[in-house]
Amino acid sequence: MMAPPAGELGLHLRVLVEAPDSSAAQVVADAPVGGARDEEAVRDLVAGADVLTFEHEHVPGDLLRALQAQGLAVRPDPDALLFAQDKIAMRERLTALGLPCPRWAALPADRDRAESALEEFLTHAAASGERSAVVKTSRGGYDGKGVRVVTAAADVDDWLDEAAQGGVPLLVEEKVPFVRELAVLVARRPSGEVRTWPVVESVQQDGVCAVVVAPAPGLPDALADRARTVAEQVARGLDVTGVLAVEMFEVQAADGSSEVLVNELAMRPHNSGHWTIDGAVTSQFEQHLRAVLDLPLGDTSPRARWTVMANVLGSTLTELTDALPQVLARYPEARVDLYGKGVRPGRKLGHVNVCGDDLGTVRERALGAAALLRGEDVAAVPGAGTDLEGADA
Amino acid sequence: MMAPPAGELGLHLRVLVEAPDSSAAQVVADAPVGGARDEEAVRDLVAGADVLTFEHEHVPGDLLRALQAQGLAVRPDPDALLFAQDKIAMRERLTALGLPCPRWAALPADRDRAESALEEFLTHAAASGERSAVVKTSRGGYDGKGVRVVTAAADVDDWLDEAAQGGVPLLVEEKVPFVRELAVLVARRPSGEVRTWPVVESVQQDGVCAVVVAPAPGLPDALADRARTVAEQVARGLDVTGVLAVEMFEVQAADGSSEVLVNELAMRPHNSGHWTIDGAVTSQFEQHLRAVLDLPLGDTSPRARWTVMANVLGSTLTELTDALPQVLARYPEARVDLYGKGVRPGRKLGHVNVCGDDLGTVRERALGAAALLRGEDVAAVPGAGTDLEGADA
Repeated sequence: MMAPPAGELGLHLRVLVEAPDSSAAQVVADAPVGGARDEEAVRDLVAGADVLTFEHEHVPGDLLRALQAQGLAVRPDPDALLFAQDKIAMRERLTALGLPCPRWAALPADRDRAESALEEFLTHAAASGERSAVVKTSRGGYDGKGVRVVTAAADVDDWLDEAAQGGVPLLVEEKVPFVRELAVLVARRPSGEVRTWPVVESVQQDGVCAVVVAPAPGLPDALADRARTVAEQVARGLDVTGVLAVEMFEVQAADGSSEVLVNELAMRPHNSGHWTIDGAVTSQFEQHLRAVLDLPLGDTSPRARWTVMANVLGSTLTELTDALPQVLARYPEARVDLYGKGVRPGRKLGHVNVCGDDLGTVRERALGAAALLRGEDVAAVPGAGTDLEGADA
Repeated sequence: MMAPPAGELGLHLRVLVEAPDSSAAQVVADAPVGGARDEEAVRDLVAGADVLTFEHEHVPGDLLRALQAQGLAVRPDPDALLFAQDKIAMRERLTALGLPCPRWAALPADRDRAESALEEFLTHAAASGERSAVVKTSRGGYDGKGVRVVTAAADVDDWLDEAAQGGVPLLVEEKVPFVRELAVLVARRPSGEVRTWPVVESVQQDGVCAVVVAPAPGLPDALADRARTVAEQVARGLDVTGVLAVEMFEVQAADGSSEVLVNELAMRPHNSGHWTIDGAVTSQFEQHLRAVLDLPLGDTSPRARWTVMANVLGSTLTELTDALPQVLARYPEARVDLYGKGVRPGRKLGHVNVCGDDLGTVRERALGAAALLRGEDVAAVPGAGTDLEGADA
């Protein structure tokens, strides 16, 4: 998705792909095959490059630091990237910066001590009326993986065993009684310029982002400002360069006051920002390229009153393009983006953006188009009677 | 420029490029090298393809018809494409369809008869107060090439000689006293669906499109409807599939009534439609792909009150990307699109789109960004004091 803006800005993009038929290889002319942990492949990749950046965080810091030592610009810096790779490091740093987080604790590696610490955390939670807590692996989790809601240490027996044997360390966090989930996308250049998009609402389904509404409906200005300020403090405090997505919980105190708590970080263009491709003056993908090249950042203003992004999560179709005649006919204003991936249950295969003035219509039409791409029956999809005029009037 | 929408819609694009470093080869993964008149290269190109389409009209009809005979879908059809290749065929057909054209005549191949016909045309023009006429080569012209304003047959002695020796036939057209130049972009599917974008004003400079304003400012609704209707009649009457650009003159009669006259046709995405990339819900490039694949067409509504497209015609810079720090800093809302071509005087090297509510500001900022990309001095470019708020407020 960085390929179109790279082409427009006259930037040469070289992408390391896992296989010759990978998504990126279908749309990037210079796409050598190799693994992100394969030192030789990465060294060949960066030959002649001005900057190395990432589309996921699972890149070994040692290799990045070795490349940096030889003069290559690596953005975000591996020292910043660590906070998106390691949830304990992230929580420690955010806590030190005084940024709002759920209550949390790192679990000791020792089996017995970890179990005691977890039970103690649960007891403490129960005192405020919450019987469960969330245990996370500090590394390697995404899209709900590496996250488990527990009511007793026994619920993570296997993880505790692994951690005790030198496996991935664990942390526990309070199960936040959130009103909803928000996300703030921010971009930062090495020279310090920061630009932030409007705060969005992210609707999760089985731990995976299903729908994003931009801007977050009904969000009071003061809380929107607070959320953006927190995201910018994260970007500066962690010395992030490029695009940073800060996933947050909106919470309400007993006195009715609202606050945000930082849930997760991603240091790259993120699913919560796909709406910007069609809904903002500058997309997160173009902005990321600008930021890591230390070029001036683009305008992050919305291009429509509302933009709704609906993910296509899995499909009963063999080829999503088979649905194009129905989708494009029924939703002529929909911006369909398919990723060229093989179909697997629940896999993010594409998304649909719809922009317009009426949130109900925009949401219904984005969800309807995504449903058709998932292979749902045309007759069963809502919005069959809604035409274009209804959506954009 | 078809590559980004092809990727988004999950369509595989294979492009025949003239050289390994051609513009298209920089951004398309599957880009074999070969000439559009090289039969073997074209046959290899279309192996396994659903449809063959074009980004210029200079493709031999015989080869296209041979491929059609073997079952390949060629869109637009070579019989339609002829009218974009041959200006005499185009004028004959539009005249037969009763569509509004400048007064015109084909010049006979015979030297003496051609000279007489031309002098007679000029005499007739003089009677209505116009001393000159426009002679055109029927084939091979573009961007002002193959067009000459004449006041006597002697002004085209060379062309008349060539035509008499079996060269390109000539035609003469009245020099239209136009108010301004308009363009209408229309897309048509084989199954008949037609969608038309708003009428734009095209500002020419030395016979080359320099600026496009969408929609055409101050155009009365009735004339806009008339222009769109004419363009749709051309699309249907010539059985065009894909995107068609109809360049028109706006003229005013002595009684104050207005009319449009068809100037030129292009049967492909066209410079007058580059504004749609950022200024319309569906761009001309995505629409062309949809149309030639007989997929439902997208919404052609504008995404902003005004969009101005400014071409970058030549540059004093060696690399246009050298101007990016200045351009992006001064115009954070500008959508910069560079074509990856080598710099040559007057060559179309890229364009800038700016969208907004105030036409004066939008125009100034699009022209300013294009001027910086042409290498003009930062201090000399207007709009130095204008900031983003001024442009989009």
